[in-house]
Amino acid sequence: VTERDPQARVGKLVVVGVGLIGGSFALALRSRNAVREVVGIGRSRANLDAALKRSIVDRAATLDEPWQRELEGADVVLVATPVAQMPGLLASIAPRLEKDTVITDAGSTKRVLPRFVPGHPIAGAEQSGSAAATATLFRDRQTVLTPLPETGAAAVTRVGALWETCGARVSRMDAEQHDRILGAVSHLPHVLAYAFVGALARRSDGGALFALAGSGFRDFTRIAGSSPEMWRDIMLANRDVLLDELAQYRDMLSRYAEALQQENAALLLELLTQAAQARRALKSLAEEPGTDDA
Amino acid sequence: VTERDPQARVGKLVVVGVGLIGGSFALALRSRNAVREVVGIGRSRANLDAALKRSIVDRAATLDEPWQRELEGADVVLVATPVAQMPGLLASIAPRLEKDTVITDAGSTKRVLPRFVPGHPIAGAEQSGSAAATATLFRDRQTVLTPLPETGAAAVTRVGALWETCGARVSRMDAEQHDRILGAVSHLPHVLAYAFVGALARRSDGGALFALAGSGFRDFTRIAGSSPEMWRDIMLANRDVLLDELAQYRDMLSRYAEALQQENAALLLELLTQAAQARRALKSLAEEPGTDDA
Repeated sequence: VTERDPQARVGKLVVVGVGLIGGSFALALRSRNAVREVVGIGRSRANLDAALKRSIVDRAATLDEPWQRELEGADVVLVATPVAQMPGLLASIAPRLEKDTVITDAGSTKRVLPRFVPGHPIAGAEQSGSAAATATLFRDRQTVLTPLPETGAAAVTRVGALWETCGARVSRMDAEQHDRILGAVSHLPHVLAYAFVGALARRSDGGALFALAGSGFRDFTRIAGSSPEMWRDIMLANRDVLLDELAQYRDMLSRYAEALQQENAALLLELLTQAAQARRALKSLAEEPGTDDA
Repeated sequence: VTERDPQARVGKLVVVGVGLIGGSFALALRSRNAVREVVGIGRSRANLDAALKRSIVDRAATLDEPWQRELEGADVVLVATPVAQMPGLLASIAPRLEKDTVITDAGSTKRVLPRFVPGHPIAGAEQSGSAAATATLFRDRQTVLTPLPETGAAAVTRVGALWETCGARVSRMDAEQHDRILGAVSHLPHVLAYAFVGALARRSDGGALFALAGSGFRDFTRIAGSSPEMWRDIMLANRDVLLDELAQYRDMLSRYAEALQQENAALLLELLTQAAQARRALKSLAEEPGTDDA
């Protein structure tokens, strides 16, 4: 998509939730000269002021102000708030939308949304808020669109073109498939990492344990430092998928426990080798050499 | 420890296993001008030749050659082979050791060793072999020494001084405590990461799953790309501890499953918050900002 593609340009963009994701989306489009005007809507005045100061947005209004008037003349509305706030916000936005306005979101679970062009950039950072936003956050990352049967094709094309302008690779699938895949590759590992750190933290020897944590521990547990509120919402929203994934994972842990109990070196090596080969085959994940502590 | 500390200097160093760890130990001492002569012993001629070419070692012999003669006049012997090979090697080395030679190792589990100054640098990398060795591998990393009651105090002091010369922070504890702690913070997360990748890899939709893997997935699974043979040996050597850790972890997973099943948002938030606070409190692990995909 070049800058000449009219699908990849926006006149007025309204970003509801000017945090890491919404702010980075605006910055990425600005860096490609693909947006004329950005209006930020959010809960926190301080965060909006920071976004104004960084020129992420041109104007801003909090949810306590009559912000809905900013929907007037909007070409694209991006809702990038926590998942739990989206249904209420969308209900509040829907009646005020103009006929040609395209609306999309950036949430982690898709089936909670009744309409529009649901989108999910597979990108993020532990830091949050507009202060953490960067124009390059989505570069070479996946963005998944999950259009509904009633979603207009033109709107899907337009939202896809905007994400491509941000540098993302765009794929489409249905919402159920999205939630199943993300449940497996993102929501489950978050449960596993939180559970691991939580189990150590409640032990009386936790301090001694953490003192010997190395780089393997650091990377394995990094996602356990993410926002508990955000992950509570995501986990509950995708609860059925997650419980199923968790059951499959616990079966695999049982196989490891059995191999250890039986001192079955051959089975253990087979299990480890299968996993290591699969992990090493993921070339796209190998760009950053990691370290490992045995 | 300064270079003037005689404890931190070596005349003749014999490194058995010139891989990432053994090679980096030699390079680190060389970079501090703390060793006169390094002899490398190993299985693979090609790896030894690479070590010679990089000046990691001055001389080298394979295990098929009469390598034991190189123990003559050695001040320090470091055994940095895979854990499973150590008992045999130590049995072969012990009768040839001179009275003043200090012998130490760099293995991940400690209770398999009958004597000497058992040591474990908590550092590593996915790459292996002398080609991956660097002088800075141990800088600001922990090295744990686990002296036995019969280990001489002077030998412990000397080995500790050498690791400090490599830039490591040295701590001492008994072997059982070492294995318990490492079982919790290193061996268990390896089982968890291998089990996670392995469970996905055997699914028919594995390709679609891996295609949407982001940076959270990448970091969480990085350790699952480590050497299966090495980890089979470590896991079996520390089997009792690991089975106990695994049982505690599975209890914690049950708590998460229950919270999800009951849609108990308050309990879920409590569990997640406890873990996130513990993880964020680990300031020493925070030096590298990570990214996270919801």
